[in-house]
Formats: sequence, structure tokens, C-alpha cells
Amino acid sequence: MKFCPSCAAPVAQRVPDGDHLPRSVCTACGAIHYRNPKLISGCVPELDGRILICRRAIEPRRGYWTVPAGFMEIGETLQQAAARECHEEALARVSVGSPLAIVHVLHAEQVHVLFRARLADPAFGVGIESLETVLCEEREIPWRDIAFASVEFALRRYLADRGAGREGLHFHTIE
Amino acid sequence: MKFCPSCAAPVAQRVPDGDHLPRSVCTACGAIHYRNPKLISGCVPELDGRILICRRAIEPRRGYWTVPAGFMEIGETLQQAAARECHEEALARVSVGSPLAIVHVLHAEQVHVLFRARLADPAFGVGIESLETVLCEEREIPWRDIAFASVEFALRRYLADRGAGREGLHFHTIE
Repeated sequence: MKFCPSCAAPVAQRVPDGDHLPRSVCTACGAIHYRNPKLISGCVPELDGRILICRRAIEPRRGYWTVPAGFMEIGETLQQAAARECHEEALARVSVGSPLAIVHVLHAEQVHVLFRARLADPAFGVGIESLETVLCEEREIPWRDIAFASVEFALRRYLADRGAGREGLHFHTIE
Repeated sequence: MKFCPSCAAPVAQRVPDGDHLPRSVCTACGAIHYRNPKLISGCVPELDGRILICRRAIEPRRGYWTVPAGFMEIGETLQQAAARECHEEALARVSVGSPLAIVHVLHAEQVHVLFRARLADPAFGVGIESLETVLCEEREIPWRDIAFASVEFALRRYLADRGAGREGLHFHTIE
């Protein structure tokens, strides 16, 4: 941020009174503009034991595989965001279940929240952000071509929990 | 947002190509500025069955009671944010435990994440954002003067779970 979104004057990096970190402070109107981590919500959609994954049509990591996930919007819940992303990326309707993983992606300034989900009907397709989408067996997951470490973490925990007949919530931090 | 934080030109509300919602788009450089929900992290700190609560010295809800919580910063985990807020508001060192509640506060454009926590040592005090802090028994909680619905939700679930000998994670949405 170089300019104040409220009044267009330049901002300076300054520690406001009573604060402990430098913030973008407007040199004219004094407004303080905070930067905070952004929330990504997604899910691992399952149908009859197979998992729905998407090959990304957009950067970052175009051509690599992910589960449906994306930035949470104002006015929706994490579960609604996960279901919406699933529809946008794979034209699939899901029923969102238990929380699976919360991953702090520090370098990206993001928190990724992944849920378990079930396809509410077997229909799915290829959304505009995807090159292809497939329902795959555990042994078919393209581990070497997974787009993000948070997605690999969530998928591995999902499968381990499923194998053990439990549904845990797993925290992880990526520096 | 009225002006572009990158180049200071006016922004317009416009649905970008391939998007489905209006965003703040710069009329000069074309930068798209997204607005997303902000994360609040906090905890319910316990010591010998009593809960540490703080009376707010700042708006909103000055004079009302809360558990330690606040905006998550860039570069920290949710657990680190919860521990930091506890230190800032009550000069207390805590060990952060299991996730207790995730509350979507739609009108505030926030997601509140609350954890269980234990005071790592019995010392605590009054941080600059607090008017007073107390360790209180369940029967002493000032239910009519709790600052936020998300905090009341988390406290009630905390106590119900504790009474039942379990540690659940509870979702809630406030319109």
C-alpha cells in the first residue's frame, strides 16, 4: 500500500500510539490501514470412496492438482465458501462435513481451512478455473503434482483418518 | 475504499472478467482490490477451574466483559495470536489447547476462532486494553455484560463441554 484508500494521500509505515507493529498510516487523514491474513476455504469431496480433484487452469500453480478451495468472501460462512468453490471449480454440489485441517501458510499470509465433504449428487464437470476434474481412487492421487503443501497435508490426513475410522481436525504451519 | 492504494487514482465498483462479484477496481492501473473477512483469534484461559475474563477499556463495547481475543497478525499462527492477545489484555502466559469455537460474524465481516487454554503460571494483570481482569468461577460469569455474542457462545460451549468431560469444536453463525 502506497496511498491511502480513503483520501489518496501517501501512507507511511509507522507504529501507531498504543500499538506494537508498524502499520500503513495516512500522512494526511491519519487513517490506519491494517493488513491481516486472508482465509482460504476448501474441501475434500468424496463419492463412493473416490476423491474429486481439479487441475488448475489459473496461476499460481497452473497445471497442478488441488482440491476445490479459494478465498472466502464477505457475507458467507467457511462451509458456504467451501461449497461455492466446489461448484465454481468442479460444477459439483457438495454437502460439507467436519473440519479436516487448518493450515497457516505464513509466506502467503493466508490461513487455509479444509473440510470433509460428500458429493450431493454424482454430477460434476470442469469449471472455468480448472483444466480437468477427476474422481480418483486413493492410489491414483498424483502426489508429485499437487499444487500446494496445504492441500497435500489435508489429503494425507484425510486418508489416514479415513483408514482409521476417525475424523480429526489437524493443524499445520508452513513457514 | 475510494482510491487505489497502488496508484491513488479513484476506484470503481465493477465485476472483473471471470468474476461474479463487484470489486474495487482502479480506474487507472486496473488493479483489483479484494475485501475479505478478517480473522479474530482468542482463547478461554482456565486456572484451577476458574476462567480469566477482561473488562474492555476500548471500543467497541467498552466496559463489557470478554475473553482475550483480537485481530490475527501477518506471520503468526492462530494459536500464537490467541496467546499474544492473552498477554496484551491480561498480562498472562497461556498454553493454548484445543479449538473450541469458530464463529462467523457476518455483519462485522469477521471469523472468530476461540481455543481452550491454561494459564502457564498463575500471574496475570491488567493490560492497556483492559479496565480490569478477573479469574472467575462459572457462577460468577457476568452473562448480562458479555461484550460479544461470539464470546458468550464460546463460553457456554466451553462450560457445557467441560461439564460433560469432552472438548468439541463448535461452529456458529451470527447474521
